[in-house]
Amino acid sequence: MTSVGPGRQGPPGHSDVDVPSGPLSGLRVVEVSSFVATPLCGLTLAQLGAEVIRVEPLRGAPDRSRWPITDDGISLYWNGLNPGKRAIEVDMNDARGRALVADLVVSGGSSGGILITNTDRWPELTYEALRRRRRDILHVALSGTHDGGIAVDYTVQAGSGFPLVTGPGDHAAPVNNVVPAWDLAAGLYLATGLLAGELRRRATGRGSEVRVALEDVALAAAGHLGYLAEAQLGQRSERTRDGNFMYGGFGRDFMSADGQRFMLVTLTARHWSELLQMTGLTETVDALGRALGADFSLEGERYQHRMVLAGLVAEWFSRYDGVAVREALARTRLLWSPYRSFADLATDGEQLLREHPLFGTVEQPGVGTVVAPGSPVTMDGRRARPSPAPTVGQHTATVLENELGLSPAAIGDLMSEGLVRCAASPDCVA
Amino acid sequence: MTSVGPGRQGPPGHSDVDVPSGPLSGLRVVEVSSFVATPLCGLTLAQLGAEVIRVEPLRGAPDRSRWPITDDGISLYWNGLNPGKRAIEVDMNDARGRALVADLVVSGGSSGGILITNTDRWPELTYEALRRRRRDILHVALSGTHDGGIAVDYTVQAGSGFPLVTGPGDHAAPVNNVVPAWDLAAGLYLATGLLAGELRRRATGRGSEVRVALEDVALAAAGHLGYLAEAQLGQRSERTRDGNFMYGGFGRDFMSADGQRFMLVTLTARHWSELLQMTGLTETVDALGRALGADFSLEGERYQHRMVLAGLVAEWFSRYDGVAVREALARTRLLWSPYRSFADLATDGEQLLREHPLFGTVEQPGVGTVVAPGSPVTMDGRRARPSPAPTVGQHTATVLENELGLSPAAIGDLMSEGLVRCAASPDCVA
Repeated sequence: MTSVGPGRQGPPGHSDVDVPSGPLSGLRVVEVSSFVATPLCGLTLAQLGAEVIRVEPLRGAPDRSRWPITDDGISLYWNGLNPGKRAIEVDMNDARGRALVADLVVSGGSSGGILITNTDRWPELTYEALRRRRRDILHVALSGTHDGGIAVDYTVQAGSGFPLVTGPGDHAAPVNNVVPAWDLAAGLYLATGLLAGELRRRATGRGSEVRVALEDVALAAAGHLGYLAEAQLGQRSERTRDGNFMYGGFGRDFMSADGQRFMLVTLTARHWSELLQMTGLTETVDALGRALGADFSLEGERYQHRMVLAGLVAEWFSRYDGVAVREALARTRLLWSPYRSFADLATDGEQLLREHPLFGTVEQPGVGTVVAPGSPVTMDGRRARPSPAPTVGQHTATVLENELGLSPAAIGDLMSEGLVRCAASPDCVA
Repeated sequence: MTSVGPGRQGPPGHSDVDVPSGPLSGLRVVEVSSFVATPLCGLTLAQLGAEVIRVEPLRGAPDRSRWPITDDGISLYWNGLNPGKRAIEVDMNDARGRALVADLVVSGGSSGGILITNTDRWPELTYEALRRRRRDILHVALSGTHDGGIAVDYTVQAGSGFPLVTGPGDHAAPVNNVVPAWDLAAGLYLATGLLAGELRRRATGRGSEVRVALEDVALAAAGHLGYLAEAQLGQRSERTRDGNFMYGGFGRDFMSADGQRFMLVTLTARHWSELLQMTGLTETVDALGRALGADFSLEGERYQHRMVLAGLVAEWFSRYDGVAVREALARTRLLWSPYRSFADLATDGEQLLREHPLFGTVEQPGVGTVVAPGSPVTMDGRRARPSPAPTVGQHTATVLENELGLSPAAIGDLMSEGLVRCAASPDCVA
């Protein structure tokens, strides 16, 4: 774990990135975005060394105050998705404000000219408008559906098939996924498409219009994981709601005598035999296999008889407390994990965050000291360290001065006209 | 929807990609992988125009026969994650076989020298070994934990906090996510890291060792979405299991009189007022707000009173059948979707797949005609069309000949020694 606070920052932006020559160092991206997918795209690029300028409309984007919030109304969600970015605040309802943002997008020389967005409502920021101003623009946009319709992770989930096969077997209603899996994947597809476009731009000088629809991401995954082919072919293995059983093999959650829960997965024949050995069930399962005419050396047969096999394994778990279960599992090469709550992760009990190189403490203005993640991608053993999120408008003046060459007087005029706003911050002195 | 079959293919590999100059055209990647994350990384790059060579060990990788499978034992899961790749089959338990794969990785000129893998068990394919042979190698690897430990999506989920806040409010046990969200995100982080490394390599000639741990992806998401900060700060909004309610606003699933289920989300004040108008609840909710001393114009207060508000809305849904509900919702700008099963998606009832530009029919050898997804990323309005998965070993001979310059006689020798295998296919004639 590393420690980073505002006092240790150099120039604003991504000075707190532990990859002085992050692979995307020099790339400059303007992000006009909200919610999860497009901010995650920008965050991921920032963690790889790009300079990302997040544009907030005056009075905030729709996600500016999304829960969870502190007692003072600061959104922990917004903070989590925007660390390491520069933040400027502009009146997007005024054409002059939007023109300023468009100026920013098309500026930046060979490493600029890149916009990430989740909205097509601003005429100055469409692909066509920006391409007229800069031929090699990279315009990277998220939509809800492929035809530009609106959708969010919740609605895309509902239509994807997954909530009807999630949850306890005896539950009748759909079970939504709390993880916004389609938002996360869409943001990372956008980052992948953006970098593919940048590779082509550097090679050929051509810009690109990159598009990802949230619904397409969910449907593509349902296809790539075999669900849609299975449903089309009407396979014997048609999916039903099946609790926490792993599909197609033997795996499930189990509970120790003192109520601790563990996920256990066997993928290989070796895993299976280790599980039988640990639980002392080798002979019992042999006898059961003979009685049922089943060959449990085959993964598919273990899956077909998962109920009775899980019953036997559950009995073993119920005889030991969590400590003994952990000790026994730790002596095997089985795949397992205790279930943890967010509170377990955040308290000193597990020590997991504090000892984990992904995490570090940051001093978040208005919030205090929190342990926060850096980049899950490492390059040559190094990763972007955690950084605080900016406050809205923190970098308005420095960005306008450095990127657009505006004079302090010109910036002061924009401020007094109310076209831009500047947070009370040492970074924002016109 | 487009139609692509083997008969319409040109040269093997990615000829069936509808992006003749896909942005990654020319890039050549070797994939020694299994399961979801690393194959999705390779697939995504292939969909953007890269040539991806998937190496299968003799008798298949551990995921070669994963369910769902056809009656003939063909894995629909494997097929879903490998379309558009070239597939070669090599004896990885023989050092000579592994040397051949290492030769392949380091070959390919300026666009080669890239490996994606999820295993560190082969000494010839480690970063160190390959870097000794080619200084600018891009070595892109997935691990379970940051220290190289083994983990899978199921175990990472259990430790991430999410299964304890998923599912019906009155359910006591964890509810696992059926979507392998961390696998999907990890595969796309790998693709992003790979392309960032490639940009740097083209600019500086430097290679990179790119690493992503599945556990880090889950923990980073828990951080970026605000869950870990919330738990650390002990906010009033501490998460508990809350069924299908949207967090922090007003949204939930509702059921029509004839049992059809819909997800409904309100994000803005406009959504909220449209919902009240549609349901005729404006005055009732006004009165309720006065009685409770609540201001339902605020998203947070709608969330705090979600139970009673959902009760009112549920009554409206229960009065109309699904057709009437759809008609009413379609007249609004609310965010909503019917819940669909995979079977709903796959049959002609919804027509969704057949009318969707993401999908097309492919002729999958051994399986038949299936509707499958292409790329969820579009570049300049074009996307990679769906393609069939290769059969294992389909391209062994052509890859060895074209990429390593081996003569038909030399390839014949490797085959008779059992070091490589060649599927019965027109592409594989030594």
